[in-house]
Amino acid sequence: MIHLARLAIATVALIFAGGPATAQTSQTSGGPVDPALINRYLMSRSLAPILVTASDIMEYDLDSNPIDPQDRRSVIERFIHGEIYKLRPDVKAVIHSHSPAVIPFGITQVSMRPVIHVASFLWVGVPVWDSRDAQDPASAAMLVRNSALGKSLASTLGDKRVALMRGHGNVVVGPNVQMAVRYAIYTEVNARLQAAAIAIGGPINYISAEEGAARDRAPTDFARAWELWKKKALGK
Amino acid sequence: MIHLARLAIATVALIFAGGPATAQTSQTSGGPVDPALINRYLMSRSLAPILVTASDIMEYDLDSNPIDPQDRRSVIERFIHGEIYKLRPDVKAVIHSHSPAVIPFGITQVSMRPVIHVASFLWVGVPVWDSRDAQDPASAAMLVRNSALGKSLASTLGDKRVALMRGHGNVVVGPNVQMAVRYAIYTEVNARLQAAAIAIGGPINYISAEEGAARDRAPTDFARAWELWKKKALGK
Amino acid sequence: MIHLARLAIATVALIFAGGPATAQTSQTSGGPVDPALINRYLMSRSLAPILVTASDIMEYDLDSNPIDPQDRRSVIERFIHGEIYKLRPDVKAVIHSHSPAVIPFGITQVSMRPVIHVASFLWVGVPVWDSRDAQDPASAAMLVRNSALGKSLASTLGDKRVALMRGHGNVVVGPNVQMAVRYAIYTEVNARLQAAAIAIGGPINYISAEEGAARDRAPTDFARAWELWKKKALGK
Amino acid sequence: MIHLARLAIATVALIFAGGPATAQTSQTSGGPVDPALINRYLMSRSLAPILVTASDIMEYDLDSNPIDPQDRRSVIERFIHGEIYKLRPDVKAVIHSHSPAVIPFGITQVSMRPVIHVASFLWVGVPVWDSRDAQDPASAAMLVRNSALGKSLASTLGDKRVALMRGHGNVVVGPNVQMAVRYAIYTEVNARLQAAAIAIGGPINYISAEEGAARDRAPTDFARAWELWKKKALGK
Repeated sequence: MIHLARLAIATVALIFAGGPATAQTSQTSGGPVDPALINRYLMSRSLAPILVTASDIMEYDLDSNPIDPQDRRSVIERFIHGEIYKLRPDVKAVIHSHSPAVIPFGITQVSMRPVIHVASFLWVGVPVWDSRDAQDPASAAMLVRNSALGKSLASTLGDKRVALMRGHGNVVVGPNVQMAVRYAIYTEVNARLQAAAIAIGGPINYISAEEGAARDRAPTDFARAWELWKKKALGK
Repeated sequence: MIHLARLAIATVALIFAGGPATAQTSQTSGGPVDPALINRYLMSRSLAPILVTASDIMEYDLDSNPIDPQDRRSVIERFIHGEIYKLRPDVKAVIHSHSPAVIPFGITQVSMRPVIHVASFLWVGVPVWDSRDAQDPASAAMLVRNSALGKSLASTLGDKRVALMRGHGNVVVGPNVQMAVRYAIYTEVNARLQAAAIAIGGPINYISAEEGAARDRAPTDFARAWELWKKKALGK
Repeated sequence: MIHLARLAIATVALIFAGGPATAQTSQTSGGPVDPALINRYLMSRSLAPILVTASDIMEYDLDSNPIDPQDRRSVIERFIHGEIYKLRPDVKAVIHSHSPAVIPFGITQVSMRPVIHVASFLWVGVPVWDSRDAQDPASAAMLVRNSALGKSLASTLGDKRVALMRGHGNVVVGPNVQMAVRYAIYTEVNARLQAAAIAIGGPINYISAEEGAARDRAPTDFARAWELWKKKALGK
Repeated sequence: MIHLARLAIATVALIFAGGPATAQTSQTSGGPVDPALINRYLMSRSLAPILVTASDIMEYDLDSNPIDPQDRRSVIERFIHGEIYKLRPDVKAVIHSHSPAVIPFGITQVSMRPVIHVASFLWVGVPVWDSRDAQDPASAAMLVRNSALGKSLASTLGDKRVALMRGHGNVVVGPNVQMAVRYAIYTEVNARLQAAAIAIGGPINYISAEEGAARDRAPTDFARAWELWKKKALGK
């Protein structure tokens, strides 16, 4: 049921708190710092995700300034990541994608709600962000190309796991890469199934808040899907 | 018309009556026993189906206790299989899957009914099970993680071939592996076609009970599809 | 736009008039005969089409009796082919398939009509056959397993190019293999597009009878698609 | 989100102004000429696009006469390209395709409008051309097989980027190959998403004219997608 290839992951960024990652050897890339003052995040340079290799990974401060660009072009919309990391200390991974089945829910009046147990995490709600909400002069171009737009999106996301970006895509956050990827994949799956149920017609028996909360507390047998996703991603 | 790759077979279990399988050499795995008293079933450890090999197959008693676990992790929802085998002596293979086109029929008010001859076996009806029906404290997590939930699902299945699991997937049973696989694949095909017919609109000319019963009695030229499915499954 | 792999060609049969094909060397397979009295057709034994090789091709008389079976199992529904060849001397190739997008049009009240120029040949109408129309004791099993059922289907097809078989599939005929394949593929394409147009809503601007007839008379640049289809079919 | 394989690019033609391309060595293919008087365009001979190699590329004048045919068969509908080049000096690349998700919008009453930022270029409008508008005796065959039909289509396109061809496909133009390909791919993506949003129901929050115009003026990080598309196209 998982069509990883159909999930266009536009950008994935990981935060690391408390100083540079151990793999970071460049002097210009920061030394030991006060974690309370400085945080950094990692993100690929502007490149189709399927083509990314280790040397394409760049380091940014939370204002989304590259630490050591080395002529690598930064992703325009990196402010999505920086501003969410600022607002949400619990978040350690942010995925922005143009998840195809999700996009229609950002431009219609029907809210995304969980219809399958593996997407029960959506029970907390899925807000929709419209770039025009930011009241920023750059809004009309629909790209999160500055901090003001990033802040506006982060504020719409609030304490949720997923926010839709009207006419654009979505953003998914998690406490680690595995969870964020899981949320992103199952958000796409849920959108396909919810749309199919709507097409069949009649009232839909959504996953309830009680069920969503119960599943949030339950342990998850997550390794099974993760191993398969990794295999597929590396096999391509 | 068969997209095997789109049918996410979560777990497949086979029952064998009357003592251990001949391939079972471990002493702890039971000796000759009274078939009337003890039955066993086989099922893979918790692993993506596409990755399963012979050494991943485990043996369970009908209470879904592993006979010889050897540090292999059991599938949480094995109780689906054990409890159905208890209730249905005619069943020798159980498939639980997250069959994508089928899931929407578990959360809407439209019953699955056969629309194509190869799925005529659905004419006996396709009940929908909601984990909350079980009135079990573990219900809200939506997984069949104990015998009580398994019994509740088995009871909803009754004497049918397929039961939908609301917001989760379905369970399909058969007198042998070939028939269960056939039922599972054509249930998915039927769901796609029924949804497409509903989208076109107007009353649908379903397969009638008379036709379903006639086809149940008719011999089936089944080998043709089975050989192709096996080829595809092994080729991946 | 052509997804050959999604077109499950169940059976393809070719007629040859005026005696056995030159490749037919067996003595039991008939000698020079009066073409007016005896006709034969060729068809694979019961085997998934993708697995068929030359030695699987069998010869049948128009009553669908195998001429030289050699322990090869005949397709149950060969009567589709024999009875259409009897009724339609202009037809030299018959395709029976479970063309997935087409099936819903056989069970709803919406007629298939051409929506794309390459399927303009549908302008003559697409009748729907229900096996129960045949009033044959074997009708309820929904398979064309005898001459009476084949005659009934052939009569519904009449002088058309395509007939839908309710809850089953369709049959497509042509003056040669290339045209029949072309009709079969574009019938599937048309069904997908017509269903998509219906889902979008509002009245549909169908291909008119005048356009259909004009295109029937116009020469076709057919080789381009045929070469590609052959490449795909052989490459798999 | 890009399924290049589903976009059946029927014909692609490129214009070059001011004399023959440097790769053009044949004497008959023109020498230095007055760019104001003579223009030429390049286009493959009649061949499935996926099979085209360098020697299949032919040169045409703006009346769509081949300059040096060498027994190569010309695409019947080359007049689409010639007549658009005549009318639109800003256009340097024309794509005609049977883009599957787009076709239903050419036969229903719902206009294509942009629903995703990457297709914001559709904000200027997407006219629909019906071959019968041309009032040409050849209209009914639905192919642009002469200059009159090409002129009629070009006139419907006007100053737009995309025009739908009822019951046939669409035509997409750009100032260079990269932009035309980008427009063609995202027109297909937009059609899929718009149809999905319509199926979900309710009023749709389309990309506004203000947003479309703002994005027309904004710089585009286009190289990322282009590199990936090229890789996919060459890898097949």
